[in-house]
Amino acid sequence: MRACNQVIIDRMQSSVALIPQLAAHLVAAGGKRLRPLLTLASARLCGYDAGDQNLRHVEIAACVEFIHTATLLHDDVVDESQLRRGLASANAIFGNKASVLVGDFLFARAFQILTADGSLGVMAILSAASATLAEGEVMQMTTQNDLSTSVDQYLQVIYGKTAALFAAACEVGAVIGEVPADKREALRLYGANLGMAFQLVDDALDYAADQALLGKEVGDDFREGKVTLPVLAAYEAGSEEDRVFWRRVIEETEQQPEDLDRALRLIKETDAIATTLRKAEDYAQKARASLSVFEESALKTLLTETASYSASRES
Amino acid sequence: MRACNQVIIDRMQSSVALIPQLAAHLVAAGGKRLRPLLTLASARLCGYDAGDQNLRHVEIAACVEFIHTATLLHDDVVDESQLRRGLASANAIFGNKASVLVGDFLFARAFQILTADGSLGVMAILSAASATLAEGEVMQMTTQNDLSTSVDQYLQVIYGKTAALFAAACEVGAVIGEVPADKREALRLYGANLGMAFQLVDDALDYAADQALLGKEVGDDFREGKVTLPVLAAYEAGSEEDRVFWRRVIEETEQQPEDLDRALRLIKETDAIATTLRKAEDYAQKARASLSVFEESALKTLLTETASYSASRES
Repeated sequence: MRACNQVIIDRMQSSVALIPQLAAHLVAAGGKRLRPLLTLASARLCGYDAGDQNLRHVEIAACVEFIHTATLLHDDVVDESQLRRGLASANAIFGNKASVLVGDFLFARAFQILTADGSLGVMAILSAASATLAEGEVMQMTTQNDLSTSVDQYLQVIYGKTAALFAAACEVGAVIGEVPADKREALRLYGANLGMAFQLVDDALDYAADQALLGKEVGDDFREGKVTLPVLAAYEAGSEEDRVFWRRVIEETEQQPEDLDRALRLIKETDAIATTLRKAEDYAQKARASLSVFEESALKTLLTETASYSASRES
Repeated sequence: MRACNQVIIDRMQSSVALIPQLAAHLVAAGGKRLRPLLTLASARLCGYDAGDQNLRHVEIAACVEFIHTATLLHDDVVDESQLRRGLASANAIFGNKASVLVGDFLFARAFQILTADGSLGVMAILSAASATLAEGEVMQMTTQNDLSTSVDQYLQVIYGKTAALFAAACEVGAVIGEVPADKREALRLYGANLGMAFQLVDDALDYAADQALLGKEVGDDFREGKVTLPVLAAYEAGSEEDRVFWRRVIEETEQQPEDLDRALRLIKETDAIATTLRKAEDYAQKARASLSVFEESALKTLLTETASYSASRES
């Protein structure tokens, strides 16, 4: 990962100074680097041995992070979120304009690096995932403020906006490791299910986290009127009076200062967080199961534990 | 071009309905389709004969247009321009959010199609041009409202935001046509110089066009405080009083209703439009000259005339 961080910093350089400045802001913010880690771990699980000279798995992992960072930057624009990972969002500091353009730069740079690497298989996976990501974000936008969104539609949204890139991050590791189709498919499924669990917990934490641990404000999704599973479950189980409340705050985003507390109370009363976390655990279980084609190893144990952790994390 | 328009429509399809809706809005708006035309013309000038079945040059031309359309969508977000090609901008109708995300989708889809096509040479050119494009837009942002911008810096901006993709559009045509390096370089230079001429005239028209012909409002650049050659030339040649005026309207964007008229008068008095168009003609001349390595043909004549037209167009 040290090598990957170095590649990330090296490859975001540009003669236009604002680009490395803004990108460095995101690198400094840290984040979990979960997606490039999945690529590196998947490649190694598939027996890829880089040797000292060959950094191609690291370069590809950096591209996965660039694509993710680009979507974070663009998400900052569209969602006007004021906090990201406990720091002010890039948008709040640099403005919409810079966030859009630096995101575009990182995305283009990722495909430049991938082209130089030359694996059409890797590029097919990551370009398709990028298109699915945009589709997921658009779909999220069209379901926002709409409580008639079904759970299936919600699951499609989180597959697009999160799980598709997790799946791709793992699958490109398998392509780097040149394993047979069954192992490649196993890693793709592992990533997809891990991503679903991860996003479900993210959506739960937005109503249930210890704010200091979470590093962003509880209730961000609420204020934007995002339709996530905690809200859908509470709405579904709510009384008619509760539903009138949900429609006002989520569909009309007509919110009073005390409304978040009421929403948190209704979510608690209807066990909506537990419902969400149970669903996350189902996906984590599928993620773990998909690894059965691999022999036992320390790395397999790590990936198994990552799936368990993703469904039970508190930040 | 009919085939290319069909590919554009086919390939922007998505199960997420808003994507083809918004993209169709841009297709309906038409535009000159200059960039994909350059790819098709360059490929044919290089002797590429597709036959009836092979549509790869058309697919690649469509990708060039997708990349361009993505930047238009993102430019709508950043520049808040209310008119684009005489229709309301996608942004004004669909919002910032949708413009960013549909742009991302088109960009990702372009690289999906290019990956399926499989030419690493084409991908290297178009991913590099996309990165340069983003750099050009960022640089434009950092020079905006800054009258100490040099003419060289301005030329770098328009190379990045416009000429780089023109150059790439032509160069990929040469790659498709599998010509030797000198012809490939000639077409790259043709595109780059054509793009410079095109953008210079664009910047002149923003202060000099017949508004009905232009299809967008005269003075858009002025209202945003963009630093283009007409402004730089008028500022350079202006009296101290004029310079105070320019600093107020461009650097502070403190503008009164009558200020555009004063700006237009100052630009006229200082021959700033003529200066800009002369520079455009210089680039058009270089574009025409770069075609000398190709034998005479109807297509070469067409490209030569395109260069002349780009430096003298009125809309």
